[in-house]
Amino acid sequence: MAKIVIALGGNALGNTPAEQLELVTETAKPIVDLIEQGNQVVIAHGNGPQVGMINLGMATAAEEGAIKSDMPFPECGAMSQGYIGYHLQNAIGNELVHRKMNKEVVTVVTQVLVDENDAAFSNPTKPVGAFYDKATAEKISAEKGYTMVEDAGRGFRRVVPSPKPVDVIEKKAVEALIESGCVVVTVGGGGIPVVRKNGKLYGTPAVIDKDFASEKLAELIDADMLIILTAVEKVAVNYNKPDVKWLSSMTPAEAEKYIKEGQFAPGSMLPKVQAAVMFAQSRNGRSSLITSLDKALAAMKGETGTVITA
Amino acid sequence: MAKIVIALGGNALGNTPAEQLELVTETAKPIVDLIEQGNQVVIAHGNGPQVGMINLGMATAAEEGAIKSDMPFPECGAMSQGYIGYHLQNAIGNELVHRKMNKEVVTVVTQVLVDENDAAFSNPTKPVGAFYDKATAEKISAEKGYTMVEDAGRGFRRVVPSPKPVDVIEKKAVEALIESGCVVVTVGGGGIPVVRKNGKLYGTPAVIDKDFASEKLAELIDADMLIILTAVEKVAVNYNKPDVKWLSSMTPAEAEKYIKEGQFAPGSMLPKVQAAVMFAQSRNGRSSLITSLDKALAAMKGETGTVITA
Repeated sequence: MAKIVIALGGNALGNTPAEQLELVTETAKPIVDLIEQGNQVVIAHGNGPQVGMINLGMATAAEEGAIKSDMPFPECGAMSQGYIGYHLQNAIGNELVHRKMNKEVVTVVTQVLVDENDAAFSNPTKPVGAFYDKATAEKISAEKGYTMVEDAGRGFRRVVPSPKPVDVIEKKAVEALIESGCVVVTVGGGGIPVVRKNGKLYGTPAVIDKDFASEKLAELIDADMLIILTAVEKVAVNYNKPDVKWLSSMTPAEAEKYIKEGQFAPGSMLPKVQAAVMFAQSRNGRSSLITSLDKALAAMKGETGTVITA
Repeated sequence: MAKIVIALGGNALGNTPAEQLELVTETAKPIVDLIEQGNQVVIAHGNGPQVGMINLGMATAAEEGAIKSDMPFPECGAMSQGYIGYHLQNAIGNELVHRKMNKEVVTVVTQVLVDENDAAFSNPTKPVGAFYDKATAEKISAEKGYTMVEDAGRGFRRVVPSPKPVDVIEKKAVEALIESGCVVVTVGGGGIPVVRKNGKLYGTPAVIDKDFASEKLAELIDADMLIILTAVEKVAVNYNKPDVKWLSSMTPAEAEKYIKEGQFAPGSMLPKVQAAVMFAQSRNGRSSLITSLDKALAAMKGETGTVITA
């Protein structure tokens, strides 16, 4: 039996509520396979498309005058945790019932601490929300103080910082739930980003990378394994080239070498490998696994996937 | 020390995110007073204005073509749990830090079971979302299968059923969190309504009364006291009349008599008194308290409020 944190991609959840509700019933099966093997499972997930939809939806309705006010970005993140968490806990719960396993699945609304002095705050890079023409972008920037940048010819978009996670505020609650036998959904979308001022926590518009947030959580709750799910079964070097090489394992040193060679795409495989290395190095006996959702069980048995151990 | 479920009104949370964030810092203080006295506190809350805003916002954005799809009503409820829960856990957590109390506050995304044979499903009464003219209302009804009714000259509106809560799906998780010393926010907006079919749970468009959901939760987690917060310090008979009488206590029999006399307004004080009576009668030693937020601590000391005991 192992304590496992699974990081699920937000893109794997579909683009509409109906799509998501259908996809999560499939997502639930390999997750329940791992639970059925006796593992303690915690699920983290991305929220890119979902928080984008919520943010854009509420902003549009406010512009149209249908609702009184726009929804700030941290609150949109909280809403996405409720929305995605509900679907995941419902679907995983139903799959557990189907297999006659008596376990509760529960979503914890989760704040993740970031450092207000994180360099990311002076260099926002993460695009969120709608595309605007130059004049509208300048007007929004003046009115709301948003940083707007041009996005590859498609227009101007707001960017927010992507700081590193420092702490998971609700970590003891997550641990208590694991101990009691619950399956926990947490740090959704990388968590609601909060900064600490005079001891108090304040939401801040930012996007925490969900792989780094999952890694931080896995350390804090003393997990044995971090499973980062992605579209491919294994990590590759020379990806999309004739001499592509699929890796069954990596040491942190090998991973660092590949990273220096630029083998992994930023915003895609790179943060996954970085988070996997960080967790594998954090304590003896901890390992990371990068694989696809449908291969998770086989990968746990050593049949596929890329294992990262120190 | 007592285990207390507090039912907080959704109207007490304000109409915009900025308003809500400010109001919850005030809401947090009397709640933390009760925690400081050594009580185990669970917070339930309404979501009327908030789920209305989310539902209307997402529907407007979908109509405008800004987002791909409308958001179903149960999902809107889940989003409101994330949104309100985040603000409450943040504000209560900050107040605890301010008083140097080391406790985590955590929101549990909560599904509440209703019976698909509940008579409420054949008589939807709870208005949600925007007002439409007759022609648009008929078009929406034909397209989406919604029940639309005329709302006192202001136009036509969708109505959803308001079934009784049967079970709280995540009750063991809530109990585990209380045991571990956490302050728990749960059954937000009365919970996400789900029906059970062949053992599996399915979200259904409905509004569960938050006072009844709080009462059900209080029974399930074996609470000692249910505190229902409202705008007034005490329950009154002959309310708004010259011979108004403010009640310090009621037995269930007295309450039933007043209910038969039509003393309490449906959708307002009536469900609060009904829920309070139900909890007081559910087991020896259990009592309910109806009072205002700012008087909660004084009422716990017996100085004000209306206590209902069997």
